[in-house]
Amino acid sequence: MVIVSSANILQEIQSDFISKYPDLDFRFCNDISEAERELSEAEILITLGEDLVPEHINMAKNLKWIMVISAGMDKMPFEAIAERNIFVTNAKGIHAVPMAEYTIHMMLHTARQATVVLEQERQRVWDRSPVMMELHSKTVCIVGAGAIGTEIARLAAAFRMKTVGVNQSGRNIDYFDEIFPVKELRSALQHADFVISVLPKTPETDDLFSGEAFKAMDKHAVFINIGRGNVVNEKALIDALDKNELHEAVLDVFKEEPLPSSHAFWSHPKITVTPHLSGISPQYQPRAFKMFSSNLNVYLSGEGEYINPVDTVKGY
Amino acid sequence: MVIVSSANILQEIQSDFISKYPDLDFRFCNDISEAERELSEAEILITLGEDLVPEHINMAKNLKWIMVISAGMDKMPFEAIAERNIFVTNAKGIHAVPMAEYTIHMMLHTARQATVVLEQERQRVWDRSPVMMELHSKTVCIVGAGAIGTEIARLAAAFRMKTVGVNQSGRNIDYFDEIFPVKELRSALQHADFVISVLPKTPETDDLFSGEAFKAMDKHAVFINIGRGNVVNEKALIDALDKNELHEAVLDVFKEEPLPSSHAFWSHPKITVTPHLSGISPQYQPRAFKMFSSNLNVYLSGEGEYINPVDTVKGY
Repeated sequence: MVIVSSANILQEIQSDFISKYPDLDFRFCNDISEAERELSEAEILITLGEDLVPEHINMAKNLKWIMVISAGMDKMPFEAIAERNIFVTNAKGIHAVPMAEYTIHMMLHTARQATVVLEQERQRVWDRSPVMMELHSKTVCIVGAGAIGTEIARLAAAFRMKTVGVNQSGRNIDYFDEIFPVKELRSALQHADFVISVLPKTPETDDLFSGEAFKAMDKHAVFINIGRGNVVNEKALIDALDKNELHEAVLDVFKEEPLPSSHAFWSHPKITVTPHLSGISPQYQPRAFKMFSSNLNVYLSGEGEYINPVDTVKGY
Repeated sequence: MVIVSSANILQEIQSDFISKYPDLDFRFCNDISEAERELSEAEILITLGEDLVPEHINMAKNLKWIMVISAGMDKMPFEAIAERNIFVTNAKGIHAVPMAEYTIHMMLHTARQATVVLEQERQRVWDRSPVMMELHSKTVCIVGAGAIGTEIARLAAAFRMKTVGVNQSGRNIDYFDEIFPVKELRSALQHADFVISVLPKTPETDDLFSGEAFKAMDKHAVFINIGRGNVVNEKALIDALDKNELHEAVLDVFKEEPLPSSHAFWSHPKITVTPHLSGISPQYQPRAFKMFSSNLNVYLSGEGEYINPVDTVKGY
């Protein structure tokens, strides 16, 4: 059985799988062009999901299963895949841990005035007056209560925060004290000390955070965006901060990435810019291959349940 | 019944207690010299615990109960208090929440290279290469597994960290995966990614963290001191960092406070200095008076259990 990877995989993971499954024929490639030579023999394909076009599906005559080792699948040639009835799994939830840690970090960073405290350190100034707010008893509103949002809520609950979530339907989810449907976004935002956007890029989320949303927020609230940049109306955000309608913003994602060096966000005193770091983790590949290994055992034995099977007709 | 406070209490807490207990005669004073005039009538005294001398106890002929609204009681005139059989309670555990939040913040701050990322922001540089370590699956060793250490362990466990503790006896404590007695400190330190000292100042803790302790630590470990500065041999710490025996240190407490502006710690590239901030919180007085209120209800009704009664003979 030939297993081809078009994603560049860490050497130690390659060795680990080769020794763990001596009967399988692994072909680890550096990219899709290298992988193309192997595709005709592949029964299983491991991919980051952004390198496939319909022709690859046609070339891979023996292909039965595609493991997408990422969560986003916007670029997958699902039509060709569904036609051939090829099984697809992905790594949904893989970003949850680092993105939740990023979010807790940035909530503490703003609450405990880290920028001010670090500047004092640079100046060798011993000043205990900056107010150290606690997360304890504060309210966090997480807009987009999926796998990542739920992990943020789980950690926030450990800090004894009140957790409010926003999803499509308003249905209840573990670790959230309260859930609002997205059509009641403004009610959800109203009493939050921290508002976290974990929304994906879709036509419906474009400029969801505009003047009205920022006005609905408490003027002491901190807005943190780790989802996609399209949700923020940039001018409205700067206006809201300049008019003290909003206390601070932490932005990890932007309409244009890399954020152009001339952009006003970089030097705005109430904005912290990070370069789309929240999902990056040295644990990414180990975690993805743990999922793959679990699914591979199901595939080989015919027993157990697959993690994250994808509906190739719906595309998620 | 006269209740005197020698600690300067927030106006809203004063009003709250006056309206909640209309039958009691509260005398809120700004300091002990103001309070001295009221002491002879006081049945209950509220104090930060650092302003009392034996003469005050003698003046307070009707005193039955002292509520110390802090955790440290080094300066309490316990002999005079014990002689008169005056009941004492304190606010042990009151620093647990802010100190645990400080610790999680600083673990994330170092793991996620916040200093580097913020400097990039200042330079308007979009660089995603700084490695973002996770707390997930890392090991934290908490030296001093009391109320504060346990709250740190509780939060660390929520991050799925392994929690190792050090206390006098080695007896097990909730939220710790493993506990070592202090005489096995080096074994406890050995596999930790983060070492947190929450130790009080005693003759036994002087220079507990010296060359041997730092050598026992992993060279990738981060050392965080939120207890007292006396535990660190300063020269040994700088040596260990300069020789790459230790990765980084975050220091909130020092042998001399304020830390002199000429001190080498301020500008050391591997040391983060904060000005004894970890226990400061706007929630301090509200939390202390929640304990006081609970104890006052026990005192008035004779029913229920006191929070944090103090053994005045032993002094803790």
